[in-house]
Amino acid sequence: MAASTQVLKRPVHFGSFLVTSQVFYSTAHSFALVNLKPLLPGHVLVCSNRVVPRLKDLSTDEVTDLFLTVQKVSKVIEKIYKADSLNIAMQDGVAAGQSVPHVHTHIIPRHFQDLPQEDQIYAMLESEDGDLGRNYLEAQHSAVMNNSARPKFPTVHPDAERKPRSEEAMAEEAKWLAGCMGEGEEGKGRL
Amino acid sequence: MAASTQVLKRPVHFGSFLVTSQVFYSTAHSFALVNLKPLLPGHVLVCSNRVVPRLKDLSTDEVTDLFLTVQKVSKVIEKIYKADSLNIAMQDGVAAGQSVPHVHTHIIPRHFQDLPQEDQIYAMLESEDGDLGRNYLEAQHSAVMNNSARPKFPTVHPDAERKPRSEEAMAEEAKWLAGCMGEGEEGKGRL
Repeated sequence: MAASTQVLKRPVHFGSFLVTSQVFYSTAHSFALVNLKPLLPGHVLVCSNRVVPRLKDLSTDEVTDLFLTVQKVSKVIEKIYKADSLNIAMQDGVAAGQSVPHVHTHIIPRHFQDLPQEDQIYAMLESEDGDLGRNYLEAQHSAVMNNSARPKFPTVHPDAERKPRSEEAMAEEAKWLAGCMGEGEEGKGRL
Repeated sequence: MAASTQVLKRPVHFGSFLVTSQVFYSTAHSFALVNLKPLLPGHVLVCSNRVVPRLKDLSTDEVTDLFLTVQKVSKVIEKIYKADSLNIAMQDGVAAGQSVPHVHTHIIPRHFQDLPQEDQIYAMLESEDGDLGRNYLEAQHSAVMNNSARPKFPTVHPDAERKPRSEEAMAEEAKWLAGCMGEGEEGKGRL
């Protein structure tokens, strides 16, 4: 397993999924992790420490911490991926496309004309490939969900080319990003 | 004009557009407004007071205030629109679909099976109809932009049925929402 490469020792769960080795940044109430199957390079998530499904479930301190973390992580991600912009999106509840019942914000670096049909990123978020729960189930439990109730989005370009990443690949990226988070600072809020 | 119905006296701008009568909530660093052409009923925006384009341009206090306002507004919107979930999305920069260079967060109430093809909301955000800048230009300057560089999203159902709303209609909704924001509270942070 990835025990030798993980940068955070305490176990961290994203919903019911153990994601410890994917975490690259941690604060009092939040953590950031790399993605199992990023929609675009640099696509990361920022989650509340507490496993609750909705933004309305968070305290004032937790909301504050979550979005200051989103701001901080997004600055670093934009810089190191040389992005022009960012999509920052929260699917706050099942009817909004949330597949893991744990508050999380997507941060997706964008470049001009980075997608074949340009602005497909939200469609991709809504697609089967953006279904984090399904992705994690497949990767961690080797189960294929054939009858997902979640709608597929036909305009998304072929997903078959993109396989879920290995624990090791994700841990490596998490270590790299953990290093980037501290650059030019004294490491406050680091892991 | 809507001077008689507006609930906030000081002029408020969303980018270069005067939106005073559409504002229904205001805090130290943020304001919330109803939408000219909501993608779904209850689609509102929360903006920073300062007209800056990117999340990274905001101070710690401004980020904190913005997202506590998003949380508060989203709770009220979800309740009064009897929504099941919310999409909360920020197009942070032009390459991410931002059309008005002023930090703003979309809050869109969602119901199960509320769209013909279910999860089109992000595609709609990216479409011509989600182009806030174009919408405001058309409404406030009576100019039709025929050669937008912004991509159209062909899967969006016909937009022609939905016209930009009148100043009066928006001011009425803003007044109604302003009232809802204060219910059950002592009015802290009200207009």
